[in-house]
Amino acid sequence: MTYCVGMVLDKGLVLMSDTRTNSGVDNISVFRKMYRWSVPGQRIITLMTAGNLATTQAVISKLEERSKAPGERQNSLLELPTMFQVAVEVGKLLRETVQQTQAENGGAAASSRFTASIILAGQIAGMEPRLFMIYPEGNFIEASFDTPFFQIGETKYGRPILIRGYDRNMSFEDAVKLLMVSFDSTLKANLSVGMPLDLMVIERDRFEPLHERRIESDDRYYVAISTSWSNALRNAFHSLPDYTFYQQAE
Amino acid sequence: MTYCVGMVLDKGLVLMSDTRTNSGVDNISVFRKMYRWSVPGQRIITLMTAGNLATTQAVISKLEERSKAPGERQNSLLELPTMFQVAVEVGKLLRETVQQTQAENGGAAASSRFTASIILAGQIAGMEPRLFMIYPEGNFIEASFDTPFFQIGETKYGRPILIRGYDRNMSFEDAVKLLMVSFDSTLKANLSVGMPLDLMVIERDRFEPLHERRIESDDRYYVAISTSWSNALRNAFHSLPDYTFYQQAE
Repeated sequence: MTYCVGMVLDKGLVLMSDTRTNSGVDNISVFRKMYRWSVPGQRIITLMTAGNLATTQAVISKLEERSKAPGERQNSLLELPTMFQVAVEVGKLLRETVQQTQAENGGAAASSRFTASIILAGQIAGMEPRLFMIYPEGNFIEASFDTPFFQIGETKYGRPILIRGYDRNMSFEDAVKLLMVSFDSTLKANLSVGMPLDLMVIERDRFEPLHERRIESDDRYYVAISTSWSNALRNAFHSLPDYTFYQQAE
Repeated sequence: MTYCVGMVLDKGLVLMSDTRTNSGVDNISVFRKMYRWSVPGQRIITLMTAGNLATTQAVISKLEERSKAPGERQNSLLELPTMFQVAVEVGKLLRETVQQTQAENGGAAASSRFTASIILAGQIAGMEPRLFMIYPEGNFIEASFDTPFFQIGETKYGRPILIRGYDRNMSFEDAVKLLMVSFDSTLKANLSVGMPLDLMVIERDRFEPLHERRIESDDRYYVAISTSWSNALRNAFHSLPDYTFYQQAE
């Protein structure tokens, strides 16, 4: 499994992904699931991937035209005029990759094995920062005012705190804190999501990461969040009104 | 979907279930998923069900021998000497019901459609209160000191708070509060889990419910928990140490 979250804030975009891949519980590895391309002053584009690793790596390789000699490669991500067109292109490559692998492996019966989903985030100069969720079928949706963040992978454990904690006006620092809590809840519940985490903060109109880091399992801040969140939750819980068995009769 | 939780405390057992069933999003109904049988001073046995409603209702009907004339019915739940034997019997009826419906509908291809899971809780005089989770295959596991609660149905959204908030020594009132928070997180995230909720509190050696209620969506306490939990979570979140982009360089 995987857990990735992308969110839009007034100030820009914040992305976090885990790095665990597994093929069975006895075959786990660390793979980067967050990718970035940028042209200073002009554009920054990032992808986060969930699903079949061979599929998602193939999509990235096709985007970068790795089948060509290095000197002949053209990365269409760096040339397409709008984020919408980037989403169309990534969706097309994803759909083709999934469909091709399925066709090579017995068609519909293998349908679920090779799928993947992608979160696309970025900004091109002169336009707004944008966030898309791209499905294995190649179509996609865009984040809106009503749904300002996307999750892929193991999304459920970490969702309640995102729903309650997200605020479009929040600072980047608070957004990182919120993501860490959401990831910590997920990591505590699902072995197939694992440290280290990748973090990227993209400020509006900056076209390069404001902040980009790998968070290891011994990261002091992550450890502090993980331990103090237990206490904070307990305090929150005890701050709620107490239940009494006789309330209805009062 | 469904959400049911059963937990063992030092003081006894606490159970909560939702009541929504759906066959498609445009066909939703309220059905009770919590069942109870008791013999004063001697035993109390409860079941909570998740999965195919026809399957779970068939299991309950078989337990109560509803195919016989009322005067001839014997409820084996009220006669079996141990909770373990009750779990064996419920598991057997569940497996037979699932397998029979599958066989009548094309075998393995229909395998996932008719399954169900059951949480069994109760106490028989002279023995400890016990809690079991029974699988569609008819086998089961029992709650232990390490895993003192079971969830069935849509379990993920409400799990992190249970993991952090549960304490074997907690009062019944705190356990009900914890369950309400867990259900509220689930209800906010998944439309297929719905109000009203059924609640039962079984005190050790009492053999009848200490407290048994249906919690409607306008229940004053539930509404208070639901609204104040948002604020409590936000306060908990802000009580955490702040992230700074420069911490690693310090």
